[in-house]
Amino acid sequence: MTKDKALPKINGRKEVARSRIFAIESVDLTFSNGETRVYERMMGKSKGAVMVIPMLDDETMLLVREYCGGTHSYELGFPKGLVDEGEQAVEAANRELKEEIHYGARSIEKLHSLSMAPAFFDAHMDIFVANNLYPESLPGDEPEPLEIVPWKVSDYHSLLAQPDFKEARSIAALMLFVDSQKEST
Amino acid sequence: MTKDKALPKINGRKEVARSRIFAIESVDLTFSNGETRVYERMMGKSKGAVMVIPMLDDETMLLVREYCGGTHSYELGFPKGLVDEGEQAVEAANRELKEEIHYGARSIEKLHSLSMAPAFFDAHMDIFVANNLYPESLPGDEPEPLEIVPWKVSDYHSLLAQPDFKEARSIAALMLFVDSQKEST
Repeated sequence: MTKDKALPKINGRKEVARSRIFAIESVDLTFSNGETRVYERMMGKSKGAVMVIPMLDDETMLLVREYCGGTHSYELGFPKGLVDEGEQAVEAANRELKEEIHYGARSIEKLHSLSMAPAFFDAHMDIFVANNLYPESLPGDEPEPLEIVPWKVSDYHSLLAQPDFKEARSIAALMLFVDSQKEST
Repeated sequence: MTKDKALPKINGRKEVARSRIFAIESVDLTFSNGETRVYERMMGKSKGAVMVIPMLDDETMLLVREYCGGTHSYELGFPKGLVDEGEQAVEAANRELKEEIHYGARSIEKLHSLSMAPAFFDAHMDIFVANNLYPESLPGDEPEPLEIVPWKVSDYHSLLAQPDFKEARSIAALMLFVDSQKEST
């Protein structure tokens, strides 16, 4: 099983491109069968990211609609953001709620952890579910207020049918949450 | 609703970094409230990507374990790949099956479509479910054969618990498929 197989040997790494927020390195690899490849990957020193499913009540999730530069479109998804230096993931989750939907949460529990395109990125994200919300705001760095969109958990099929709700991590979070609700009833 | 709100105006774009496989552009934006920002995004001319859940029989999915350069680890997920120029997504799905798990499929149906981190990427992926498999191989560009890992759909909770099965798009695909199976029974 490759699960237990030796990882490819990294013969060398070098930075090949850099912008304000991205840095790309090329990695010279020898696989355990002797094959060699030069791969590229995004260099990251991120502390990871968080995504939160905020529950306004037992049935109602809060989503945000936000401008996304990669697709030049407004997209619907759960509040999310990067973990700051010196911050725990659960603290980042509560901060993002206050910045993006103007609620804090008295209860936040981890649902699952995800990666994103590990062929190119080392991007770890923890998914949380937040309950017992109370009004509290923190200033965010968004250029405009995010639209806050309530959605019934029981209507998750209609959410999946929205053309602007298609981000893989938001869909994974939704479906893991729906599954956990079904399991617990 | 921002759903109907004017998109930010793109005042200018320029390439700020490029490597063999990545290109990054900076985009100068004015939001509808007058706020200005300079965002960065990955330039893509990709025809999109596909992921396939191949069913060996009514109960058994086939996954692959593959080296991922971004995390320098072997990761478990569904067969996937880019759509080639001049190829339809469904053709790419069948080609990837032949390259990665050495089966073709007599029946392939689209399950859902995803994006990935639309704040930075314009990355569209179609998820397919493949049935009626038959042995057929095509040479892939992988440096080593991929380990093929069968998994019962009914054991999806044990799959979610694997530390090497955590890619957001594979989790989204699994959970959407499990949900579609529950709906149809």
